[in-house]
Formats: sequence, structure tokens, C-alpha cells
Amino acid sequence: MKILTINAGSSSLKTALIDYPEQNVIATANCDGFSEHAKLSGSFFKKVQLHIKDHHHAVKQILDLFMEHKVISSMKDIDAIGHRVVHGGERFTDPVIIDDTILEEIESLNELAPLHNPANLQGIRACTDIGCPMIAVFDTAFHSSISYPLYAIPKNLAQEMRIRKYGFHGINHSHIAAEMQKILKKDPNVISCHLGNGCSICAIKEGRSIDTSMGMTPLDGLVMGTRSGAIDPGIIFYMHRKGLSIDEIDTMLNKRSGLVGISMISNDMRTLLEQYDKQLDAKLAVDTFIDRIIHYIGAYAFKLGKVDALVFTGGIGERAGFIREQICRQIETFGFEIDVQKNQSNARQIGKNIYIIPADEEMAIAGATFNVLQTV
Amino acid sequence: MKILTINAGSSSLKTALIDYPEQNVIATANCDGFSEHAKLSGSFFKKVQLHIKDHHHAVKQILDLFMEHKVISSMKDIDAIGHRVVHGGERFTDPVIIDDTILEEIESLNELAPLHNPANLQGIRACTDIGCPMIAVFDTAFHSSISYPLYAIPKNLAQEMRIRKYGFHGINHSHIAAEMQKILKKDPNVISCHLGNGCSICAIKEGRSIDTSMGMTPLDGLVMGTRSGAIDPGIIFYMHRKGLSIDEIDTMLNKRSGLVGISMISNDMRTLLEQYDKQLDAKLAVDTFIDRIIHYIGAYAFKLGKVDALVFTGGIGERAGFIREQICRQIETFGFEIDVQKNQSNARQIGKNIYIIPADEEMAIAGATFNVLQTV
Repeated sequence: MKILTINAGSSSLKTALIDYPEQNVIATANCDGFSEHAKLSGSFFKKVQLHIKDHHHAVKQILDLFMEHKVISSMKDIDAIGHRVVHGGERFTDPVIIDDTILEEIESLNELAPLHNPANLQGIRACTDIGCPMIAVFDTAFHSSISYPLYAIPKNLAQEMRIRKYGFHGINHSHIAAEMQKILKKDPNVISCHLGNGCSICAIKEGRSIDTSMGMTPLDGLVMGTRSGAIDPGIIFYMHRKGLSIDEIDTMLNKRSGLVGISMISNDMRTLLEQYDKQLDAKLAVDTFIDRIIHYIGAYAFKLGKVDALVFTGGIGERAGFIREQICRQIETFGFEIDVQKNQSNARQIGKNIYIIPADEEMAIAGATFNVLQTV
Repeated sequence: MKILTINAGSSSLKTALIDYPEQNVIATANCDGFSEHAKLSGSFFKKVQLHIKDHHHAVKQILDLFMEHKVISSMKDIDAIGHRVVHGGERFTDPVIIDDTILEEIESLNELAPLHNPANLQGIRACTDIGCPMIAVFDTAFHSSISYPLYAIPKNLAQEMRIRKYGFHGINHSHIAAEMQKILKKDPNVISCHLGNGCSICAIKEGRSIDTSMGMTPLDGLVMGTRSGAIDPGIIFYMHRKGLSIDEIDTMLNKRSGLVGISMISNDMRTLLEQYDKQLDAKLAVDTFIDRIIHYIGAYAFKLGKVDALVFTGGIGERAGFIREQICRQIETFGFEIDVQKNQSNARQIGKNIYIIPADEEMAIAGATFNVLQTV
């Protein structure tokens, strides 16, 4: 079955055409930045710059390229489409087949993810002509099982405003849970560290998410490239009293904080690691990033009671051996001993209970799409 | 040496007259609520209601009572006064003898603790006539050694606005560190859980604070009676977009959240424990409170590498055996086995590495005051 996956981010769009269950990637095509100079790249054509105005437009262009380069001979070659949808609210705890009612329900969640859900809807609407079944795969759904989703705020207000911990990166964390189940041949207790542009950690108990570091929004938790992660909420009130507007603070915490905020050098971990021994602020940013990760690993180890596997995934998680080594050295008394050589070679297993599992959202979306159609 | 301790809260004032180093409490006197019906109570007179308008007035009244009841025969009997000052900023990392310069410096920190430092200053000014040495003992000072005080926000702004993790309850956490040092006869690694009206946890490595759950303000961290503790900062922006003003959100998170927010029943742990098996919302509030404590115990255990003692202190920590048992049962695989009988009797040692140490801020303030004067 040929499944097209559509992953619409706030200013990008990633697609893949995957043969499933063979798990064979036929083609990929991505669009980066919506403007007169948007970059289109893919596995079957030379990178081009084009005027692409939005997600809808990007999907149309990519489908044209599929036809033009004979990746498919007609739209009928696509058997199903899996759409990543960031926010499923409390309503969606599993992938669903999209129809008009579902579309309306997703739209009603826009205020919970104002940067993402509208983009996801555009991606869906751009594909309705194709006529094949479409599945929405939610990034929050895996976390619908977390133990304590409520914040300690007035209950009536929380209900009315739909404020609770939703968590994100669920598509990848559930992929990690599934991969570790295959490797360990049981439903294991896993701490999954997704360290990329966005970062989150998930405590997985016997295959189910019981806690995660992102919150109601993707701003909470770990230090990220440009996002602050957890901060004392009192700081926002203080900054506001000192004259900053709420919009300014919002933008600052999302776009100018995190690694680039502390270091004032870069939001890119590679740059900071190059400067680690040369510039104190680079070291401070990286060390604070690591300290926050250890914080959550410890918290989740205690919540799980027993940890079968600590997993690193995402761009930084998969490639930054230095970060992994620093983390594991500090927690080795709790049974996380890293094998330095295996770690340096980015092996799959890099210590007694420590693994690297590549993030593969596209394959996870295709898998979820396939599974939904099998059970219809 | 007779040391008077003055502990001025936002709407209360506690005093004690202590013989030090004998650690003998000669008298205590407290004032609760500043109004026409303020309550004065103490160890040497019958509770009275009086019109007391502020902290300054309360100190004067209490000193009059000391004279009237012949606790002291003249002001000259007081050898030194130790004042609790909530916020010492980055400037004060140890107790100091108060002079005009120090007073100005404390005043310059008012914006960092707008509810507390002005009250502390009133308490100090009410005593200047007495003429004996006065010492400021800061609730933040013990945390000046924490490893990662910086938030992941733009560095220049953080410096300019003096935004960093300061931590609070340092007077009691340092008292816990000192008590555990006496008991274990070494500088031990301790996780100190101060659970009272306000709640905070401190990771103490070889006698020094390396991390704590309160932040720049006392709003962060654990779920408290009426305070939310840690929440996704994105929630504040979301609430504001939904029409709440920043002042409303500030008041809500400080006064109507925490245990009373989740349960909608009470901010008092005793009431919630009575209702634990009867009302689901009481159970939910208590269980969320416990989950957040386990979160920080795990985080701090991993940061410390090895934990010599888990200590409970503060009103809830000292008296709520049920809470202690629930916490320890969930983390016993990490070596925290509780002795159920000793726990029920509120013994000093209630498990292999688990202790109850009563909070005693007054004695800690007197001790710090004494030590400063010894080293002059």
C-alpha cells in the first residue's frame, strides 16, 4: 500500500511516499520557508527555489513534482494519506479517519496550537481532491495516558479553558516505545529523550506515556534551541511589571531564549559544541541544557520505579555523543553506564540500558495510517 | 547571650527571645493579621486582640509586653537581634551585621520580593532604638551555591533585570543540613523536603545547596496550599489571550491555585486528608501534590548521584504520615524504605535513609546571629 505522509510545520512541509507494511520509502519531498524563495528539496529532483505562498500551495507543487518525475503515474497510485496533526486536545487519543466532522473538531482546537493546527488543516484541505482515505495522526495522542495531566490551578477555569498537560512529540515517543518493545521483547519502562530543535522527554511505563516534559504548549520543559523551557511563572509577572508587554515576553521565550538566550552565540548545538572549550557562555548553555535533561531523567526514573532503557533520539540525541556521555556519566550510579567507544560510533546500543533510536516521524505516521485502515 | 529573633511575614510577625548558645527559648510572641483585630499571642501572656496597624507597630507592642511581663527588665537585656530577611538577591550570600549601607542595599532588593522585603525592613527599623547589634539572616543565602542559577532567557536581559533562580526556605534548609551533619557525622548528601504552607525541596550536596524547587520567586516548584507551583509558562500567554489580565492571573496562581485550586475544597492538607477517601477532588489534589514531590526527589537524587538522607520538615512534612508513606512507597526501589510504625509515630528516623527534622527558623536565625557576632 502506498501511503503519502504530510507533516506540516509552522513554516515548513515534509512529505514522504512509503510502501507499507514493507516500510520502503519510495520518495521524499520537503518545502522550507513560505516566500518567493521557498526551498523545495527531495529524493528524486534537484533542489529548487520557487515562490510558494503557504502549506496548501506547497502540497500542490510537491504532488505536481511526483507526477512530473513519474514517482506516481496518477493520483490514484496513492492509497492513503497520513497527516500529522499537532494538537488533538482531549478529544483525540488515537489516529482517526478524516471526514467533515473530524475536520471541524480539529479546527475547534486551533486556539490550543495557533501556530500548528491551522497549518495542518491547510495540508489536509490541499489533499481532499485526491479522493483516497486520509488519516489524522496526532502528536498529543500518545500522552493521553499520562497520570497527572492537571495543573494546580482553579479546576473550573482549567476545564472551561481546556488547560491541561497535553504533551507533544508523541508520534516519535510512541515510535520509540514500539522499537524498544521489539528490541527487548516486552512492554518495557523507557525514558525517551527526544533532543532536536524542540526537545522533550517522555516517561513510558509498559508501553504507555505516564509523563512528559512539554506541557499544555511546546514551550515547557527542557532548554531548547530558542525556547526557554520551564521557568518560574513569577518571572513573567515580574518582567511585565518592569515594562515588557505580554506579546514581547511570549516572543522572547519562544524565539530568543533557550540555547541562544543563555549563550548569546547560537541556537545550534553544533556551533555551541565547537565553542564549548573556547567560550564560557557556550559551555554554560550546553551545561544548563544537560542539567535540565538530568533533572527530568531522574524525575521520570523515580516515577517509573524501574527503567529498562534510556533512549536518545532526534538530531542532537542521535548525533551529539558528547552530550550523551556527559548525561550518562553524571547518572551512572543509578545504573546507566555508557560504553564510550560505542557512544562515539553512534551505535544502536551504547551502554547497558542505553540506546540510540533514530526519530522517524514519517514512518511512524505511515504505520499509524496503515493500522487504522487495517482495523476498519 | 539573649538574642531576639524577628520574623516578619507578609501579614504576620513572629518573635522569640533565645539564650544562645544554650538554645534555650525564653519567650515567644507573635502577631497575626494587621488590623483593628490583630491577634497577639505568646508563651508568657494570654492571647489578646488589639489594633495593630503594621510590622513596626507590632514590634513595639511586643517589646512593651516583654517589659510589662518582666521577660526583660530593660532593653539592655537584649544582646543582639536577628532579623529574617526574605530576599538577599545576588548581593547577600551570608548573614550580615546591619548598618545604614546594608539597609539601603536590602531596600534596593524590594522589587524582587515586593510582599516580603518591605515588611522585613519595617521590622528592622522598629528595633533600631534598642541599640544592640542587629543581624540580617537571608532566606535566599543558602542557595547562593546552586549549580545552575540561570534561566534559559536572553542573558543581557536576565542580568539587567536580576532574573535568576534565588530559591527560598534557605534558613530552614540550612538548618536541616546542619542537623543531618550532626546525626550522620559527615557533610552528607541530603534531599530536604520543606512541606508547609509554602513548599520547597532542596538538593544538598556535602552541606551545600546545589538546587531547589522554588525559583526567582516563591511561586515555582511544588504544589502548595494556594500556589500553583511550576506551570507551563505558555499557559499564562494563553489565559491572557482568553481575556484575563496579568494581575488577575498573578493573583490566581498565588492565592487560588495549588491544593485549593485542584480540589475546590480547601488549601489545608488536614481537611483534604480527611476527605481523601470520600471526595475524588480531594484525592486528586493530594495525589498531584505527592506526584510533584516525587518528581523533584527523583531529579535531585540523580543530580546528587548518591543520597544519604531524605528529610521531611515543615507542618505537613512533620505531621502528615500518610503523605510521607505514599511518597516513600513509590520510590522504595531506589533505597527509600519506610518503617510504617516509626512513620506513624512521627519518629526522628522513619526508615533506612529517611528522617523527620522539625523546622525551627527562630533557632536557626539565633544561631546565625550568634555565629556572625562570634566571628567579628
